Amino acid sequence: MALSARNRITGKIEEIEFGGVVAHVTLRAGNFVIESVITKRSAEELNLKVGDTVTAVIKSTEVMLEKN
Amino acid sequence: MALSARNRITGKIEEIEFGGVVAHVTLRAGNFVIESVITKRSAEELNLKVGDTVTAVIKSTEVMLEKN
Amino acid sequence: MALSARNRITGKIEEIEFGGVVAHVTLRAGNFVIESVITKRSAEELNLKVGDTVTAVIKSTEVMLEKN
Amino acid sequence: MALSARNRITGKIEEIEFGGVVAHVTLRAGNFVIESVITKRSAEELNLKVGDTVTAVIKSTEVMLEKN
Amino acid sequence: MALSARNRITGKIEEIEFGGVVAHVTLRAGNFVIESVITKRSAEELNLKVGDTVTAVIKSTEVMLEKN
Amino acid sequence: MALSARNRITGKIEEIEFGGVVAHVTLRAGNFVIESVITKRSAEELNLKVGDTVTAVIKSTEVMLEKN
Repeated sequence: MALSARNRITGKIEEIEFGGVVAHVTLRAGNFVIESVITKRSAEELNLKVGDTVTAVIKSTEVMLEKN
Repeated sequence: MALSARNRITGKIEEIEFGGVVAHVTLRAGNFVIESVITKRSAEELNLKVGDTVTAVIKSTEVMLEKN
Repeated sequence: MALSARNRITGKIEEIEFGGVVAHVTLRAGNFVIESVITKRSAEELNLKVGDTVTAVIKSTEVMLEKN
Repeated sequence: MALSARNRITGKIEEIEFGGVVAHVTLRAGNFVIESVITKRSAEELNLKVGDTVTAVIKSTEVMLEKN
Repeated sequence: MALSARNRITGKIEEIEFGGVVAHVTLRAGNFVIESVITKRSAEELNLKVGDTVTAVIKSTEVMLEKN
Repeated sequence: MALSARNRITGKIEEIEFGGVVAHVTLRAGNFVIESVITKRSAEELNLKVGDTVTAVIKSTEVMLEKN
């Protein structure tokens, strides 16, 4: 099973904060901190917990670039 | 100047491929490869070149999570 | 392996059109036609061909609703 | 009035869950279940109710593809 | 017919540039310049031409904020 | 510091509504009203307040076009 989304960053969940409908999940991946907002239902169905290893997946059209 | 987008991953451009309207830019950031599709105009205006240090910027609502 | 994206629509590829950097892929899924723009590289790496069965995957924050 | 977004999937609302700022709306469209996160204000202004016929609208650049 | 997307900015098309699969459309709306990348097919089906009045439509989850 | 996102609309914050995880921010920019959903954390870290001048930033691939 392969997905067209080209960006995959694997890390460990450091924090999960639940709202009414969405959840804010924070990962650490090497030196990077990745933050994700997904539905509360997905967080529950995936049974996400602090310490879990998960992969952030991002479609390349969603990635902007900044240059100094 | 601070932007609300919470994900920032700094790396070096390894490859730029230009199409008619958009460009495909590949970065290396530590162990991660990040790929971005932006307009050709932005790539030109930012004068992106292989070897440049740039930061990938991603809104947290665009980040999915995958768990094994 | 489970992804947080909540929308999955499986269909058959009817057409693939390649540009310089991105590809336009058209699926038929029951009565629905689904169109996707992904990178040309992903289309090539997935070896997408007309007639393939593939699943469109969409994050729920990307889905708007229209009411008559 | 025509919109550039190429994906339109019409179905019936099965469930609406309200959070503080956003709402999670679940549709059934033929064999497919479609889930959408929109602002609570849009859900209220459109007066969305279970049983309503609505159309999910998705820009093609937001559609990923998965192949087995 | 009402769409959940909350941002609507009406302006006049100043330029259209076609690539192989997508098109880059530039609008002027009051003092603002708005740029959009849509599929070439949508641009053709909508018969977009320089001088046309069109409305940019943006889902609120796609809008970032920057503060000085 | 320059970002690839091509759309920038500067206005004044008229209203901020906080949910559990995200915030709904409404700007006025000339004749246009712009609405944004960002994380509550970003709204707090940017210390967004009614009356602040902020800039809405939007990637061009997120902009749809509608024609009458």
